[in-house]
Amino acid sequence: MIQRGIEVASRGRGTLDITAKVESVVVESGIITGLAHLFLRHTSASLILCENADPAVRRDLETFMSRCVPDGDPEFEHSAEGREDMPAHVRTILTHSSFSVPIVAGRLGLGTWQGIYLWEHRTAPHNRRILVTIQGE
Amino acid sequence: MIQRGIEVASRGRGTLDITAKVESVVVESGIITGLAHLFLRHTSASLILCENADPAVRRDLETFMSRCVPDGDPEFEHSAEGREDMPAHVRTILTHSSFSVPIVAGRLGLGTWQGIYLWEHRTAPHNRRILVTIQGE
Amino acid sequence: MIQRGIEVASRGRGTLDITAKVESVVVESGIITGLAHLFLRHTSASLILCENADPAVRRDLETFMSRCVPDGDPEFEHSAEGREDMPAHVRTILTHSSFSVPIVAGRLGLGTWQGIYLWEHRTAPHNRRILVTIQGE
Repeated sequence: MIQRGIEVASRGRGTLDITAKVESVVVESGIITGLAHLFLRHTSASLILCENADPAVRRDLETFMSRCVPDGDPEFEHSAEGREDMPAHVRTILTHSSFSVPIVAGRLGLGTWQGIYLWEHRTAPHNRRILVTIQGE
Repeated sequence: MIQRGIEVASRGRGTLDITAKVESVVVESGIITGLAHLFLRHTSASLILCENADPAVRRDLETFMSRCVPDGDPEFEHSAEGREDMPAHVRTILTHSSFSVPIVAGRLGLGTWQGIYLWEHRTAPHNRRILVTIQGE
Repeated sequence: MIQRGIEVASRGRGTLDITAKVESVVVESGIITGLAHLFLRHTSASLILCENADPAVRRDLETFMSRCVPDGDPEFEHSAEGREDMPAHVRTILTHSSFSVPIVAGRLGLGTWQGIYLWEHRTAPHNRRILVTIQGE
């Protein structure tokens, strides 16, 4: 069981491809068959598995969320950190903070079109910490 | 690999902080570096990782879900157990039934503002069963 | 750590019960206490834990998603593969690509009313590949 922290500096709302960062932890671990568990230690950003070929997919995700969970919702009480404070928490709960990816032949066993993304939901840049736990043989 | 059941008595719709209950299973296990996997054995309640400082966040989650998946939806067929029967299933699928939290230095490796919550989606109180599986060293 | 691929042929949009297929991998593994991790290697279909008694529940899920993430959304850019291309990616991110189910007494430790379903979000049939990773004792 190997644990490593990954730090990601977001540039504000939007997605960042972290597949290579995660894969480098997997390769460093020397594990050939196993699982890589990712855990984001924040409640206003997400981890997602997303189509990795067309950047429009991530723009469209943003379009969807902007309508589904609009900033500045007048019915939300929690707004100490701004108009997108509570919407960021809702977006996080509708998506993912944590999942595991199989390790196959010493590599992430992702599908051809799958990438791992950090999705920042706050408008300001944030330093985000992901804990990676690797297990296997 | 250690498995323990946790029973939680919900008081009807709303969230309950179960972080301390989960942490006590982790401490009892004696595992120092590992993963705690949580699994809720029901389809009308959820497990979420949520901001743990301001109770308004959980009220706002409820506000959001009440609009996104309103009770008494006339287009839903499945309503044997009441107006919120099918909405409870939809809320569950939009959130989480299962995730793992890293164990770091013998404790849950949560972020400062993260708590683990049971989110009851039915209006009546229910006894909910969570299976905790601990692994590590 | 045992890894097996499961192939599922979807018949287009809709859910397929894959509980028995997953359970057969668990039984074959001989693991008595552990975890079965499921990972879907696609970004336009999901894995869900859903009520397994009334087929109307899955029809209602479809009704919900058809309204929440309608096909042919004029604000989406990514539509190379059709009107439901981008909605399929959004549905995937709102639900699940991956989770683990506890293994209890050599069987899947599901609740009485829980089944494991592949949810196809594309209108055409697709062959979907799920990687199952089993660990335990």
